[in-house]
Amino acid sequence: MELIFLGTGAGVPSKERNVSSVALTLLQEINNIWLFDCGEATQHQILRTSIKPRKINKIFITHLHGDHIYGLPGLLSSRSFQAGDELLTVYGPKGIEEFILTSLQISGTHLTYPLNIVEVTEGEILNEDKFTVYAKQLDHAIQSFGYRVVEKDKPGELLVHKLKEIGIKPGPIYREIKENEMIITNDGIQLYQKDLIGPSKKGRVITILGDTRMQKDHIPFVKNSDVLIHEATFMHDKVDLARDYYHSTNTQAATLAAEGGVKQLILTHISSRYQQEDDLSILSEAREVFQATYLAKDFFEFKIDNHN
Amino acid sequence: MELIFLGTGAGVPSKERNVSSVALTLLQEINNIWLFDCGEATQHQILRTSIKPRKINKIFITHLHGDHIYGLPGLLSSRSFQAGDELLTVYGPKGIEEFILTSLQISGTHLTYPLNIVEVTEGEILNEDKFTVYAKQLDHAIQSFGYRVVEKDKPGELLVHKLKEIGIKPGPIYREIKENEMIITNDGIQLYQKDLIGPSKKGRVITILGDTRMQKDHIPFVKNSDVLIHEATFMHDKVDLARDYYHSTNTQAATLAAEGGVKQLILTHISSRYQQEDDLSILSEAREVFQATYLAKDFFEFKIDNHN
Repeated sequence: MELIFLGTGAGVPSKERNVSSVALTLLQEINNIWLFDCGEATQHQILRTSIKPRKINKIFITHLHGDHIYGLPGLLSSRSFQAGDELLTVYGPKGIEEFILTSLQISGTHLTYPLNIVEVTEGEILNEDKFTVYAKQLDHAIQSFGYRVVEKDKPGELLVHKLKEIGIKPGPIYREIKENEMIITNDGIQLYQKDLIGPSKKGRVITILGDTRMQKDHIPFVKNSDVLIHEATFMHDKVDLARDYYHSTNTQAATLAAEGGVKQLILTHISSRYQQEDDLSILSEAREVFQATYLAKDFFEFKIDNHN
Repeated sequence: MELIFLGTGAGVPSKERNVSSVALTLLQEINNIWLFDCGEATQHQILRTSIKPRKINKIFITHLHGDHIYGLPGLLSSRSFQAGDELLTVYGPKGIEEFILTSLQISGTHLTYPLNIVEVTEGEILNEDKFTVYAKQLDHAIQSFGYRVVEKDKPGELLVHKLKEIGIKPGPIYREIKENEMIITNDGIQLYQKDLIGPSKKGRVITILGDTRMQKDHIPFVKNSDVLIHEATFMHDKVDLARDYYHSTNTQAATLAAEGGVKQLILTHISSRYQQEDDLSILSEAREVFQATYLAKDFFEFKIDNHN
């Protein structure tokens, strides 16, 4: 599980930062990649990574501003050229379906794969074998969502040494133990799962917020995330500008991270008024409030470790 | 007057060639830049050139396939951020208006400049002080246009030595001679423009075709162009594929150039099946048919000289 930042700028592309998109690679977990936002030229950025567009099976759009969606029609079209035939689902605010369908229809684009478009509202928006995703409405000039991706807890591992101690040899019975609370062997022995399986592994939580003013009522939504991705369009001295434009500062993002008890914070959506030489200031201002802060750049890769 | 190729690939972007767009800079002539097609990430390509988006006042779309239009919403939006307030006109086939307006409306984009959208049909589509532009429908899977840009002939220069010979000194009268067929001086002398102005300079002609099968009935439309830009999706051995997909080969483009008596041919819209090492073959195959052929690459700049 890894985050790959494809675009980390705000509003308009610059030479250093493309407009918004971040990939969550879940190759080991489900052999898929999820995308969050898809600004123009996201497919071009992908060309410079190891990401295969056909592996992308879900795209979550936080809000409909152009710098978050104008790359969608191109990415969806190109995926057809790259032997994509697996279902792709796009989640996003009301309006995303009209944008996609109009773009594809007017350009005469016929996809080679089934496309599903889900216009989301707050709450649980998907619940699959290994992951649940929740959406929450944020505080932006237009409807903007945050997405909380929750990996389900993984059952513990079979305690093979214990089984050997009591004389149970490897075979189909191992799977039976994994799948049932109690089984009775052919010899009439009762085996309880709880005695033979180690503690379950807590799943990871990644929370990705769209453009928003920082609000204290986002705390429960980001609570205890392993990674929180938060916009930081401005630095602390521009706090008024941030409020006026429905954005956040680096220190506001850090405050939310601290109060939400998250493990790590990644700042993104950086205004093009800031240059590379400002990176350190952006970061150190935020770290005064929340130490485990990182500043995303385009192509920044961030590994999210399993819990012990 | 110069052509700057911003995207020279076909269908999908590659690392070497972006999807279609070419700029015609008319800075000396009218202090503006015209764009032909606007594939995704055209604004990103522009960032790497000297082109200022606010100087772009006309965009001509040849056809509505995604690789020719998906960069429009982003470019139009970003132009607002770059102090663009001059009228921008987009010309294109029926459908272009719905695509642009839907994209802007759904993304909540408010432009800072007036936008005019003209859905074109065949014939003269604009006639201004210095340029006339004609459109012609080509032979593609969907409606696709070629644009013939005709620079109006420039009046000759004042023959200052002749004026001096007859004792007319520089002053407002020089302008009067330029603007009137005949004037009478305060001294009652009749001055005829035709005697005092050199021969007019023939304007240049640039013809840019959208995706198309090469067709002999395009000859009159490209006739005597200074520069013809023609697609060459395939090489000669793929002539059947070209026909099936409504495209042209390099040698077909060269044949049209030869039969149309154009001065120079530039090949573009090259399939991503071809790599850099194929450039020479593409070019030499075409040059066997028409010597003055060039092969466009991204950021290729081509100066179009004035006629003597």
